[in-house]
Amino acid sequence: MSSNKGVAYIKPGVVEVQNIDYPKLALGDRKCHHGVILKVVSTNICGSDQHMVRGRTTAPEGLVLGHEITGEVIEAGRDVEFIKVGDLVSVPFNIACGRCRNCKEGRTGICLNVNPARPGAAYGYVDMGGWVGGQAQYVMVPYADFNLLKFPDKDQALAKIKDLTLLSDIFPTGYHGAVTAGVGPGSIVYVAGAGPVGLACAASSQLLGAACVIVGDMIPERLEQARSFGCETIDLRKDVSLAEQIEAIIGVPEVDAAVDCVGFEARGHGHNCQHEQPATVLNSVMEVTRAGGAIGIPGLYVTGDPGAKDDNAKIGMLNIRIGLGWAKSHAFYTGQCPVMKYHRQLMQAILYDKIQIAKAVNVQVISLENAPNGYKDFDKGAAKKYVLDPHGMVPA
Amino acid sequence: MSSNKGVAYIKPGVVEVQNIDYPKLALGDRKCHHGVILKVVSTNICGSDQHMVRGRTTAPEGLVLGHEITGEVIEAGRDVEFIKVGDLVSVPFNIACGRCRNCKEGRTGICLNVNPARPGAAYGYVDMGGWVGGQAQYVMVPYADFNLLKFPDKDQALAKIKDLTLLSDIFPTGYHGAVTAGVGPGSIVYVAGAGPVGLACAASSQLLGAACVIVGDMIPERLEQARSFGCETIDLRKDVSLAEQIEAIIGVPEVDAAVDCVGFEARGHGHNCQHEQPATVLNSVMEVTRAGGAIGIPGLYVTGDPGAKDDNAKIGMLNIRIGLGWAKSHAFYTGQCPVMKYHRQLMQAILYDKIQIAKAVNVQVISLENAPNGYKDFDKGAAKKYVLDPHGMVPA
Amino acid sequence: MSSNKGVAYIKPGVVEVQNIDYPKLALGDRKCHHGVILKVVSTNICGSDQHMVRGRTTAPEGLVLGHEITGEVIEAGRDVEFIKVGDLVSVPFNIACGRCRNCKEGRTGICLNVNPARPGAAYGYVDMGGWVGGQAQYVMVPYADFNLLKFPDKDQALAKIKDLTLLSDIFPTGYHGAVTAGVGPGSIVYVAGAGPVGLACAASSQLLGAACVIVGDMIPERLEQARSFGCETIDLRKDVSLAEQIEAIIGVPEVDAAVDCVGFEARGHGHNCQHEQPATVLNSVMEVTRAGGAIGIPGLYVTGDPGAKDDNAKIGMLNIRIGLGWAKSHAFYTGQCPVMKYHRQLMQAILYDKIQIAKAVNVQVISLENAPNGYKDFDKGAAKKYVLDPHGMVPA
Amino acid sequence: MSSNKGVAYIKPGVVEVQNIDYPKLALGDRKCHHGVILKVVSTNICGSDQHMVRGRTTAPEGLVLGHEITGEVIEAGRDVEFIKVGDLVSVPFNIACGRCRNCKEGRTGICLNVNPARPGAAYGYVDMGGWVGGQAQYVMVPYADFNLLKFPDKDQALAKIKDLTLLSDIFPTGYHGAVTAGVGPGSIVYVAGAGPVGLACAASSQLLGAACVIVGDMIPERLEQARSFGCETIDLRKDVSLAEQIEAIIGVPEVDAAVDCVGFEARGHGHNCQHEQPATVLNSVMEVTRAGGAIGIPGLYVTGDPGAKDDNAKIGMLNIRIGLGWAKSHAFYTGQCPVMKYHRQLMQAILYDKIQIAKAVNVQVISLENAPNGYKDFDKGAAKKYVLDPHGMVPA
Repeated sequence: MSSNKGVAYIKPGVVEVQNIDYPKLALGDRKCHHGVILKVVSTNICGSDQHMVRGRTTAPEGLVLGHEITGEVIEAGRDVEFIKVGDLVSVPFNIACGRCRNCKEGRTGICLNVNPARPGAAYGYVDMGGWVGGQAQYVMVPYADFNLLKFPDKDQALAKIKDLTLLSDIFPTGYHGAVTAGVGPGSIVYVAGAGPVGLACAASSQLLGAACVIVGDMIPERLEQARSFGCETIDLRKDVSLAEQIEAIIGVPEVDAAVDCVGFEARGHGHNCQHEQPATVLNSVMEVTRAGGAIGIPGLYVTGDPGAKDDNAKIGMLNIRIGLGWAKSHAFYTGQCPVMKYHRQLMQAILYDKIQIAKAVNVQVISLENAPNGYKDFDKGAAKKYVLDPHGMVPA
Repeated sequence: MSSNKGVAYIKPGVVEVQNIDYPKLALGDRKCHHGVILKVVSTNICGSDQHMVRGRTTAPEGLVLGHEITGEVIEAGRDVEFIKVGDLVSVPFNIACGRCRNCKEGRTGICLNVNPARPGAAYGYVDMGGWVGGQAQYVMVPYADFNLLKFPDKDQALAKIKDLTLLSDIFPTGYHGAVTAGVGPGSIVYVAGAGPVGLACAASSQLLGAACVIVGDMIPERLEQARSFGCETIDLRKDVSLAEQIEAIIGVPEVDAAVDCVGFEARGHGHNCQHEQPATVLNSVMEVTRAGGAIGIPGLYVTGDPGAKDDNAKIGMLNIRIGLGWAKSHAFYTGQCPVMKYHRQLMQAILYDKIQIAKAVNVQVISLENAPNGYKDFDKGAAKKYVLDPHGMVPA
Repeated sequence: MSSNKGVAYIKPGVVEVQNIDYPKLALGDRKCHHGVILKVVSTNICGSDQHMVRGRTTAPEGLVLGHEITGEVIEAGRDVEFIKVGDLVSVPFNIACGRCRNCKEGRTGICLNVNPARPGAAYGYVDMGGWVGGQAQYVMVPYADFNLLKFPDKDQALAKIKDLTLLSDIFPTGYHGAVTAGVGPGSIVYVAGAGPVGLACAASSQLLGAACVIVGDMIPERLEQARSFGCETIDLRKDVSLAEQIEAIIGVPEVDAAVDCVGFEARGHGHNCQHEQPATVLNSVMEVTRAGGAIGIPGLYVTGDPGAKDDNAKIGMLNIRIGLGWAKSHAFYTGQCPVMKYHRQLMQAILYDKIQIAKAVNVQVISLENAPNGYKDFDKGAAKKYVLDPHGMVPA
Repeated sequence: MSSNKGVAYIKPGVVEVQNIDYPKLALGDRKCHHGVILKVVSTNICGSDQHMVRGRTTAPEGLVLGHEITGEVIEAGRDVEFIKVGDLVSVPFNIACGRCRNCKEGRTGICLNVNPARPGAAYGYVDMGGWVGGQAQYVMVPYADFNLLKFPDKDQALAKIKDLTLLSDIFPTGYHGAVTAGVGPGSIVYVAGAGPVGLACAASSQLLGAACVIVGDMIPERLEQARSFGCETIDLRKDVSLAEQIEAIIGVPEVDAAVDCVGFEARGHGHNCQHEQPATVLNSVMEVTRAGGAIGIPGLYVTGDPGAKDDNAKIGMLNIRIGLGWAKSHAFYTGQCPVMKYHRQLMQAILYDKIQIAKAVNVQVISLENAPNGYKDFDKGAAKKYVLDPHGMVPA
């Protein structure tokens, strides 16, 4: 039981499955008696992993990836009181202490005690506190009583694991984008990006009662995936303005709410769709969101992007048409989703069959060994959400 | 065109279709240049009309009933600027001026300028300002620019009129109950009462993303109706406690949120189900709502009930186990639904086919002449929502 | 150091300072490695202690009282990570685990893991989980990293300890009442009760920007105290209706918001002011609160009151004129204040001299030995808040 | 009575008092029977007027300025029902119809019916609908029943007119900035800019209960003014970073909340303080606002700025370090303040002496004729708020 395998970042474009250390209840010198060790039941490849794998960050060689983790508790630290060995649990990707001011206010994405460098931490992510990633057979989760969401019935949960595995990140993240954008019954929403987060946002918008969900992307397969569960779609490769395309669908050129599920690696529109234009999504959503509307921004914007085209973008400074947003009294909501704020209720929605989130994002289960291929396909724009199954526990 | 017919209250148990005055742009001496005259396209019988018809109020003989009105504008006062002759519109049952402090805060159910006796007014209702009811061929709507919701496409709207007719009252009212109870994605909700408001609340809870909606009533047909769109149900005639019946469905005896869609004419539970016990719903929802939950109370509680059993109840004073609610940190939300707060978004949900509200409440269209039969059947507990069709405009 | 003294309830009307056990990091068999032992710097007598001392509960002989505690950490359990020996801290009266659904939602008043009998626990209180009270020299606080608020500067804090000692209960409790009632800049507020919670609510309302705070009580000294910091007052012994007295002050008979700081031991008005009328405050605040207003209810209502006059009141069931509240669309907020939600910000208000809360509630520091006299005077209606000083650490 | 005088914009740097048309109940061909004519009692020069006067807009010659208006009703249109001749009223600077979706939602700053060019209108402002300005003897206010706030007592109001005159714009605008930034009891706030809006924001923050208000500017007199009512200040001419200066005051380099009361005409910091750097305030407030904090942006950002240094800035596109805000989960609130949302409550705060807003912003009353000098002094950075007194009605 002391062996472990995990997916490690090697260099731009390359990840490998390696033998890695079996987890300890510690992070370096920091003891984690409050932690548990999980046998990983499922762990997903995330779009934000791709930023590292593409070499757009300073991730060091050997960094074990993976922050979307669902598992079974196989060992519990001495200070763990309510979580028990044998529990099947979902792990929020944001690591949180449960004791600081931010955690007490429900802002678990910016916990003050888990990352000396800045507020907020995550598993297997550069600059996010050094916690070992969970695209592995085993992983350690600190502050287990606080962080973990226990599924009420293990068998029921295993049967729905392809849906529940999405609770660790992209389902709440997409949902957070919709909620902060003010989506509710009757809303007309524009979701920028039909990757997994965008699709999760679209499905979340439907769960929230949206009247019409419009998804924009440049990859036909991803748009097809969005249409498969009832979304309207916009092909951004066309040289027709976003506003005009929206008007063709709903009769007016503005929506009630918009969500940026793309972030800083955005590309231009129409004939510019091969060129990176990091602020293009932000600027276009201001254009098509009605005055008084809100804009959710779960898509990642970074403080440092060594691979950016210009000096400003290298420090996360972008050309934003704030004057337009101001004229329309827009509100803008940024930052990591605080998963814990939503995961229990979204779990209920899954368990009571109110949403088919795995189907919406097109979950594909692959073995841990197969992770490198998953990364490659995903990077090419496959309309799939890859879920790794390190122990062959995910039912077919 | 100067003739008119309407449904009038005659005496307890009796309503009649009578010739009534063709509407004027005035209420007595009060000029209503801001008003319009509607040709009534559909107008619904409401449970709160029944309080009057059963003789539980001081409604005078001849009072023209009806506060759930949808119609076509056929005449507009000189001060009406944005609503036009020909528009097809939904009328919120609460009459509001759009100029007082409460209206400006969105509290149109307690407008300060439309009823000298107290905040709040309605069409065709005792003590609600004297405005003529709309169970008629024609009706006057004051402050038309403010009050009316115009349907964007007349043909589309007529095709969905059985759903849209519910925007004037019970759909928003049921929805308001759910919203104030804190219902959202993943919620488990108990709805007390399976009359039209209860069913609308149940369907609204689903629209809001509830994981599980449990509806309680004593009339088997109404429970059957609730089951027809996916609700769980509880038969209150059984001598099994509400908490036990809830536990049998969801595994625990408490729900996240509860909505009282019954009000002061409530009856006891089990073997007491023939006896009026006006506080029984309030007391039972406190019992089955989890600590920290909220309780929406769209069901009507009155300040005067001449027909009540005891002196306290006659002035609206009931035996409420507030100590229980306090121990559970419950919040309680009372009062008329401010329809305008919700009707536009709920219209969108109908127009984009996100809810089948007419089916949920089992709309039955009958002629104006047939209204007296509708009142009778409804009073017997028919699992139907009666919609009057004064001009034969509602498509089959 | 293994000796300890505390205030114990003996029988109705009698409390005694006794030798009690020195605290352990445990509650019976339940280990509390997450707890700390405090040297109590200050601990206050609370109105809710009086319910026990008056014999209105089933509190057993020997129960050590005290849930308003401020102290210095002198021992920390092995699982305590962020709180350190030497820290000067405020203890919220509600004990909370920081790991359950309610705690994660900020509802620390109804924690699910600290009281097997029901949600919510407190120190030294009947039916509140059996945790030992803190009107003592030393006391144990569980889940210390979560529960405790550390003062940033020890010397500064000791200099303001008479104000800071109120953070454990009555300042947040009064503030919570005001916040839930919707008090904000420009509000006109009625506060029922000029005991310490009522006065804290009045001062909190001023901090929140209220335009006018009106306090009602029957004890002239307490009303005088309210006037000392700028409140308007109403003498409830007068046979003039509350509405008329309010009108005499502000020109209209209704306020924007009302807070019930009295609870179930309320007495009648005017010539009935000697008679207990447990629902009188609730009924009167509905009368004087404008339509659309909210009512905060920090005053305690109990599920069981053996000393009540009638069978209904014995189980916390009161005659409430809910019909009136409904007609005015009132919202009602009940339950224990979740202290943690507010204490940090209120601490800042004290440290930056934005509120003189000790002066507002008239803090009187007495020795631990003198506690029995404090209880007696407070029971007679002294316009004072008694703070016990077990170690002579409170500066004069 | 058919004569009128007003302040007109002539060319960059020049305004003149001219004879202008006596107001009509119309705007061109648009009849305004819903309007009233006011005898202007007081009307203030606003920082946003300066944008026009400095030639930073396309304002045409002859445009009558003035959107901060308080007056007495001397004529009421035939459709005005509740406002009466003789009423003394405050006019929100945003013109709103009270009938559109946005107005019904309380978003009166982006009314859909008062400006064909875009949502939102104002008196005397370029591109804001063409409504005639109120720096005049007489002015027309449309939709009077909806827009106007009537002072309850005329004599009392005249006595406090120097405070009440600020209700039309800068008091609510500064307050809105504070509210959207999440300021409440105990907050530590940074207010960028000590012009009238910044000072109003600082005073509003105090009214909201802030523990510490820090104001930054480059003009010593304005900082002195901020200190006069208890603010901490930061001199931005110093070559010490904002974070360091904040740390020197409160011990940590970050505040809870920040408000940008400067807008697009911002200048750099330290040795750059003579150079326009339009995004500098936005970027610096992200730096000094804690993770999870919010940023209120009442300062104006425009969609077109012909006088800007570069092509991007000419269309309101600025270099914003959004990556930093994202990492800190900031929320950003932009747009015109919807004055009506706040003015009634702020009026109460003035009438009950809870705030000395005229003193905080240093109101200077001058005659209408003297307006050109007021503009000049204000443009030089005078720490004064100029109030014009066209009829000599403002008491000394």
